Amino acid sequence: MSSSCGENLRLTIFGQSHSPAIGMTLEGLPAGLKLDMDRLQRFLERRAPGRNAYSTARKEADAPEFLSGLKENVTCGAPLTAIIRNTNTRSGDYDAFANIPRPGHADFTARIKYGGAEDRAGGGHFSGRLTAPLCIAGGICLQVLDREGIRVISRIAAIGGVEDRGELLSSTAEKDFPVVDEARGEAMRQLIAQAKAQGDSVGGIVECAVLGLPAGLGDPMFAGMENRIASVVFGIPAVKGVEFGAGFAAAALRGSENNDPYIVENGLVRTAANHCGGILGGITNGMPLVFRAAFKPTPSIALEQDSVDLTTMRPAKLRVGGRHDPCIVPRAVPCVEAAAAFAVLDALLARKKEENSVWN
Amino acid sequence: MSSSCGENLRLTIFGQSHSPAIGMTLEGLPAGLKLDMDRLQRFLERRAPGRNAYSTARKEADAPEFLSGLKENVTCGAPLTAIIRNTNTRSGDYDAFANIPRPGHADFTARIKYGGAEDRAGGGHFSGRLTAPLCIAGGICLQVLDREGIRVISRIAAIGGVEDRGELLSSTAEKDFPVVDEARGEAMRQLIAQAKAQGDSVGGIVECAVLGLPAGLGDPMFAGMENRIASVVFGIPAVKGVEFGAGFAAAALRGSENNDPYIVENGLVRTAANHCGGILGGITNGMPLVFRAAFKPTPSIALEQDSVDLTTMRPAKLRVGGRHDPCIVPRAVPCVEAAAAFAVLDALLARKKEENSVWN
Amino acid sequence: MSSSCGENLRLTIFGQSHSPAIGMTLEGLPAGLKLDMDRLQRFLERRAPGRNAYSTARKEADAPEFLSGLKENVTCGAPLTAIIRNTNTRSGDYDAFANIPRPGHADFTARIKYGGAEDRAGGGHFSGRLTAPLCIAGGICLQVLDREGIRVISRIAAIGGVEDRGELLSSTAEKDFPVVDEARGEAMRQLIAQAKAQGDSVGGIVECAVLGLPAGLGDPMFAGMENRIASVVFGIPAVKGVEFGAGFAAAALRGSENNDPYIVENGLVRTAANHCGGILGGITNGMPLVFRAAFKPTPSIALEQDSVDLTTMRPAKLRVGGRHDPCIVPRAVPCVEAAAAFAVLDALLARKKEENSVWN
Amino acid sequence: MSSSCGENLRLTIFGQSHSPAIGMTLEGLPAGLKLDMDRLQRFLERRAPGRNAYSTARKEADAPEFLSGLKENVTCGAPLTAIIRNTNTRSGDYDAFANIPRPGHADFTARIKYGGAEDRAGGGHFSGRLTAPLCIAGGICLQVLDREGIRVISRIAAIGGVEDRGELLSSTAEKDFPVVDEARGEAMRQLIAQAKAQGDSVGGIVECAVLGLPAGLGDPMFAGMENRIASVVFGIPAVKGVEFGAGFAAAALRGSENNDPYIVENGLVRTAANHCGGILGGITNGMPLVFRAAFKPTPSIALEQDSVDLTTMRPAKLRVGGRHDPCIVPRAVPCVEAAAAFAVLDALLARKKEENSVWN
Repeated sequence: MSSSCGENLRLTIFGQSHSPAIGMTLEGLPAGLKLDMDRLQRFLERRAPGRNAYSTARKEADAPEFLSGLKENVTCGAPLTAIIRNTNTRSGDYDAFANIPRPGHADFTARIKYGGAEDRAGGGHFSGRLTAPLCIAGGICLQVLDREGIRVISRIAAIGGVEDRGELLSSTAEKDFPVVDEARGEAMRQLIAQAKAQGDSVGGIVECAVLGLPAGLGDPMFAGMENRIASVVFGIPAVKGVEFGAGFAAAALRGSENNDPYIVENGLVRTAANHCGGILGGITNGMPLVFRAAFKPTPSIALEQDSVDLTTMRPAKLRVGGRHDPCIVPRAVPCVEAAAAFAVLDALLARKKEENSVWN
Repeated sequence: MSSSCGENLRLTIFGQSHSPAIGMTLEGLPAGLKLDMDRLQRFLERRAPGRNAYSTARKEADAPEFLSGLKENVTCGAPLTAIIRNTNTRSGDYDAFANIPRPGHADFTARIKYGGAEDRAGGGHFSGRLTAPLCIAGGICLQVLDREGIRVISRIAAIGGVEDRGELLSSTAEKDFPVVDEARGEAMRQLIAQAKAQGDSVGGIVECAVLGLPAGLGDPMFAGMENRIASVVFGIPAVKGVEFGAGFAAAALRGSENNDPYIVENGLVRTAANHCGGILGGITNGMPLVFRAAFKPTPSIALEQDSVDLTTMRPAKLRVGGRHDPCIVPRAVPCVEAAAAFAVLDALLARKKEENSVWN
Repeated sequence: MSSSCGENLRLTIFGQSHSPAIGMTLEGLPAGLKLDMDRLQRFLERRAPGRNAYSTARKEADAPEFLSGLKENVTCGAPLTAIIRNTNTRSGDYDAFANIPRPGHADFTARIKYGGAEDRAGGGHFSGRLTAPLCIAGGICLQVLDREGIRVISRIAAIGGVEDRGELLSSTAEKDFPVVDEARGEAMRQLIAQAKAQGDSVGGIVECAVLGLPAGLGDPMFAGMENRIASVVFGIPAVKGVEFGAGFAAAALRGSENNDPYIVENGLVRTAANHCGGILGGITNGMPLVFRAAFKPTPSIALEQDSVDLTTMRPAKLRVGGRHDPCIVPRAVPCVEAAAAFAVLDALLARKKEENSVWN
Repeated sequence: MSSSCGENLRLTIFGQSHSPAIGMTLEGLPAGLKLDMDRLQRFLERRAPGRNAYSTARKEADAPEFLSGLKENVTCGAPLTAIIRNTNTRSGDYDAFANIPRPGHADFTARIKYGGAEDRAGGGHFSGRLTAPLCIAGGICLQVLDREGIRVISRIAAIGGVEDRGELLSSTAEKDFPVVDEARGEAMRQLIAQAKAQGDSVGGIVECAVLGLPAGLGDPMFAGMENRIASVVFGIPAVKGVEFGAGFAAAALRGSENNDPYIVENGLVRTAANHCGGILGGITNGMPLVFRAAFKPTPSIALEQDSVDLTTMRPAKLRVGGRHDPCIVPRAVPCVEAAAAFAVLDALLARKKEENSVWN
């Protein structure tokens, strides 16, 4: 199913940008977990719009209402459903695109697929707003992982052509604009401001690391950690590439460079480098699991664009009004963490089946 | 499940490098399809080892035996199972790695996961040999897609640091060493020969395009064409990155550059460029679906490497003997096509549910 | 996952008896279907409590609120979510059972499974109230099936030991108390009234028929129509048996009696009898698909019962107060129809993949 | 998918009655399990044809060849595949039914579904022979369950109208013809012999009990133990009904009769009776899990039957030659155990995810 993912933990996301509500159901969460609602709210605020100069002006509280699965904020074993009401909708903004599809958006493909029955307002089910329920699910998964000593951190690795420098650390991830090199961060923000001033947008790259993972998580072939993570991360709108460890750069290396030699450190088997991103044969090796996701520039730009009027099949010019992020990357950071947390917890539950067996 | 994938079409791959046989079961294939066994065999030979200077010397016919699902080479609607016997196995080669895991391989992670019960010989279920059943499945899917006017082509986009130039065309894909720019191809082959002579290996990038796809294939969120393709392609050992269209390069572009303007061409809606790789909102737009997969250099190298003796937990040196590809990329080309063909046919079957409904 | 079912159509049910809301998400429904909300409401009212003498006095409107998946009552292709608020909850009624599990209920098994974290109020996720979201889903499926000329009808085949006589017809199904033989129906109602007066309850059997089904629906082995229907129908609380066609009675027949001879009727292949319940090899044969579901008597009875105090592990007496149906069967009739409609529509979507293929 | 089942453990069955081989793949089995091949073979022999007077004369060794998933008879964590070659095939027997479908068989429904491409020989994928791979899988699951102290036993509860009397015990299950009451058993065998002599067949009922199950297994709603078991058991050809505990008989009881009072026995919570068949709310309560499966009489009978010639659409007479069981029930006993063992082990793996969590 299109809007569900996961194997041992199952996430179903519903809602359109302008439907009465958006939300998510999480099945398979163990019973007895006490959720920290303040912490969850803080996590959601990292994604929420309207917080600063480089995000859309649409302001919504994004406060989830839990409909089921909890008893006094403790999971009860039943499916956990939370919704966020859509209050600040201005559907009129989108009427213009009914017949003139916006380049870079799903207007045209949705129309072909759904034959005109699709909900166009605000991008419908394709809207970036649907990452809010993903963050509810991910925020909960992060709390569960925390008890296992697993942390998910990330940074803005690049915006436009400007790349961050240095190594991603926990302290980086806690920043409001998470980059290691502040000068590069400033250059990124200027690039965003510049694009905004020009009615344009920029893309970027988010780097994410999962720390404290036990070795032995994941599976060979189609349920490797790469497959599991990529299949969720590509569910975030605008992601066009995912790479693990050295990723595409590994293609230019020699085996003698790319292979990570084993060493012993504090009595544990570790690797001297981490070109593999903590994954060999689809399975974690106990090193940080590192991946990067490439985000295309926000397709909604104020500049005039070329399109086609589908009723006349003739060229048409189009300007996209409304409120849009000149760069989605800063708000995408918690979404990437959410996706990673979900995929990792799912793999961890799979592992539970194996490791505590009577038969071993 | 780890060794299964697909939703409407389900592929299950079984076998270890040195088990009696490897094979695959394909469920969900429509009944009444006549398979061209010669064409399938030619497809499998593109992946088979021992064909030329830059691949392993292990020679096996890789001739599939069909156990079920066919009646006189026509699909009968029942699960289709084919196996390949493992005849040329030399398990002794792998005894040395029992306690000294090879860097870049799954030896260590498999041992942690399976507690020592894993089949180490030849890499077991982690072996690149398991791409042979993937190619049986993919080769069949390619024949089905053919009847729908859909073609899957690919090329070697890079080996080591050497990148191919020019545009991937059908004629490129038919070459034995599929590159557009022959001079670059020659440089790639020299790089492989050089790595081999040095007991080393090199990685590379495969680019794949699916032509003739109807618009409207795929789904929003977790069943987008990106998710579907990535989740299969990451099942090919050594793949560490997957990107669609402009991919990671899109992260450095402006929205005004990356958005593909709509145009009308021969009465059809097309886009003037294809930065999106033929996919918007997870759904095909009728342009070629284009993606690239990054392959790390073969971890098996003849050079001495640093590892750890797991019985003593002390540093140990290791040399990997046996027969190995100095570069897996040329043989990986049909595997990428197979993965793409499977994912696309699965999405096409999903689409059948929607488009021919009485209710529309 | 426990609270999800379906393959091409996926239903996820959430909520507890006394949580803020209960609800369901339906994925995979084709876009462009106009829903008749009045008709849906009438269907839900057949299940709703408090309508007559033989059901619980708890009165709730059971009016679904649609949160997503619709645009002006037409499906838009995105997951369809509807909720029903829980307004009339009296949690206090259930405190007594925290340590003294009610016989015939899930109190004890839920406690073992969820370790005390389960939501006991009103039976939590195990409550019969969760059949309301099943009926929302089923009510929608029934409308879709209607356009395909498929109808789902049912009757009360037995209550207590009293069995209905005669053949189930469409006219029967429309009755408020759907039995063919009114005298038997009156005897059933008296049995219910008698049980109620005695603080006891009775069970019964619902018979369901799906009319207008095309031949060729369903699959061999694990996705036969029997498997598909049983796996949903057993999701209705209190169902302890499911049989198709002659069912258990077939076990006492000769092959020469049970085999349904083929005949030609109005140019169509039919069978002279229907012992197979319209299913051979898991696949429909074009005759009515007929099955029966056995419901145990409502476990909530006013009579004193023997149980165990789990804190002291000593025998304890218990009386279940609150509002309960002396017989759940009349209200279960639409639930069985809903389950059947969902399973049949799921199979119909599967069939769409096969029948309209270009390759055939 | 039609020929796959299971959630944590996944079974895929392939093959047709007269294809080169039949077989199965089992994914998700923990690594490190040593299989007792002699014990497995003895289990398979209980299902094998040609053992006695009341089964078909077709004799095949049914000796599985393991292609993958094992290293010296110990599971290695990779998918486990085993096949059985089809050696004794006489396809000619089935040519006659190409256009005149056999009543009670899948000939007609398969033809509609697969459009004539189906493999008719021996019933193709619909053949009872496909229960051999089910028994390989089940026989392995039984060995795993054994280590957990879980046993699966069963008996012939009825053949034709003759019902067994007394309670199913382990000693019953070990008999060649497993009934409690030998006189009833003798009457059953006479009924079979009589049916055979008349060219006819008889049906029957298998009762199965799973002993030693921990409480807390299974889930509410669609993954209850009833749903899990029924969805596999209905995969055995000829099963037309499944009931748990008192089953259909519960429909005629009062709540005060059907509710099983809790008692304490040897310090454990037990129930004084077992009308619920060990399952409440879909979850085991620690009592024996008891169910019954109704088998229709073998549709293959020697008596002349009425059918239709599909080429002329006119009535036609038909006689089914070949080798057939006058009663499938004795050979179906291990198949029911296999199905139960698979479903129970799958649920047990699901439980492992929950119970050993760090978070509890």
